[in-house]
Amino acid sequence: MITRSQIKFIKSLSLKKNRYLHKCFIVEGEKNILELINSEYEILHLYLTEAIDINTGSLQVNFISKNELARISCLTSPNKALAVVKIPALKDLSTGSVLVLDSISDPGNLGTIIRLCDWFGVKKVVCSEDTVDVYNPKVVQASMGSIFRLDVLYSDLEKYLKEVEGPVFGSFINGEDIKKLNIPSSDFHLILGNESSGISKKIEKLITNRISITNKGSRAESLNVATAAAILLYEFCN
Amino acid sequence: MITRSQIKFIKSLSLKKNRYLHKCFIVEGEKNILELINSEYEILHLYLTEAIDINTGSLQVNFISKNELARISCLTSPNKALAVVKIPALKDLSTGSVLVLDSISDPGNLGTIIRLCDWFGVKKVVCSEDTVDVYNPKVVQASMGSIFRLDVLYSDLEKYLKEVEGPVFGSFINGEDIKKLNIPSSDFHLILGNESSGISKKIEKLITNRISITNKGSRAESLNVATAAAILLYEFCN
Repeated sequence: MITRSQIKFIKSLSLKKNRYLHKCFIVEGEKNILELINSEYEILHLYLTEAIDINTGSLQVNFISKNELARISCLTSPNKALAVVKIPALKDLSTGSVLVLDSISDPGNLGTIIRLCDWFGVKKVVCSEDTVDVYNPKVVQASMGSIFRLDVLYSDLEKYLKEVEGPVFGSFINGEDIKKLNIPSSDFHLILGNESSGISKKIEKLITNRISITNKGSRAESLNVATAAAILLYEFCN
Repeated sequence: MITRSQIKFIKSLSLKKNRYLHKCFIVEGEKNILELINSEYEILHLYLTEAIDINTGSLQVNFISKNELARISCLTSPNKALAVVKIPALKDLSTGSVLVLDSISDPGNLGTIIRLCDWFGVKKVVCSEDTVDVYNPKVVQASMGSIFRLDVLYSDLEKYLKEVEGPVFGSFINGEDIKKLNIPSSDFHLILGNESSGISKKIEKLITNRISITNKGSRAESLNVATAAAILLYEFCN
């Protein structure tokens, strides 16, 4: 059972301004909810259409119908579970290598990149302030639960990078071939740019090493940013 | 100017059965149209909202309004140009390495994988019959024009793979680490499986080499199939 005002509140969280006003966001789907429950994130409300294989502990569960779930879901195929989750206080405790994102606009790309960072052990992502919001429902969905295991911060990248010591790698069309590169064994900063325009001019100046994934003779102009992230993280984290 | 019956016809092409009934599909956006014109694909109709920087040669252009484009477009943000293109006769002339896709269901993933193959010089993709249609508008869009430079065939994979000589690599959670693998310098077959269920049992039996992208200690269960394709093609094609 869900009230009309609850529906209205949950639907309002699809907008960034409402997420930050109420300091909460939505997590959907059985697998994501399982990852969520195993994380330190605080669940405010949990809605289920059926009992699922999750230890909800002392958490109060609201059982709702499939029709009700469809009314509050952001997915085209709602999947059994939806939680309203508290946005955690900003923290910046992790050390180690950092992936830096300059103006990533597609939520699917950001979610996929977070999933990759989790896979390859990069625990911190620093985003420019105009990068899509990490609590956007499509980002949460595409991260497949990895969002709960990483620190994702938003920052003025120019200020942030000026404080960085050590190499700052940036991915360009015309950089050094990463297959031939001497990858540092120490912590690194790696920057990826916007889907259309790449790394912005003001950030480019702060890069110490320009790198590339070599094109094997195709007319293709570029790779999708998430697939480029996959290849670069694979090389840097091995 | 566009007639009501033209609108109806173009909209009908969002369904696979109509694409194969009429033997044509839709290509949208300035960049994709440019790649299309530079390819051997036959354009049946070209609709533009404004003159764009493309040599259309003897091709007859229909100028339409932005509102008219919005009515025939599959995109949320229609972009200046839409073409109706003939589905080419099936060909299977390419030799060389082959990427094999077992039941890929997401059109964005298939388009992204085609873009990757183009980048890394793999000219042939063989899909299981239940893989999403390559002429689905979202596949065409995500391929960013690479679709016009590759052979994509649909086949009974079991039959197809039984005829293959040489190594057949398949990506699994528990295969040999590709970082330690001796990558063959000769042509290869590389198989990727469905987004949720991976490579199917009947195909698994035909694989000679099980490979993996090693997880760096994360709880993440898997990588997105397009990002896995990125890393594998990068290693195999270098």
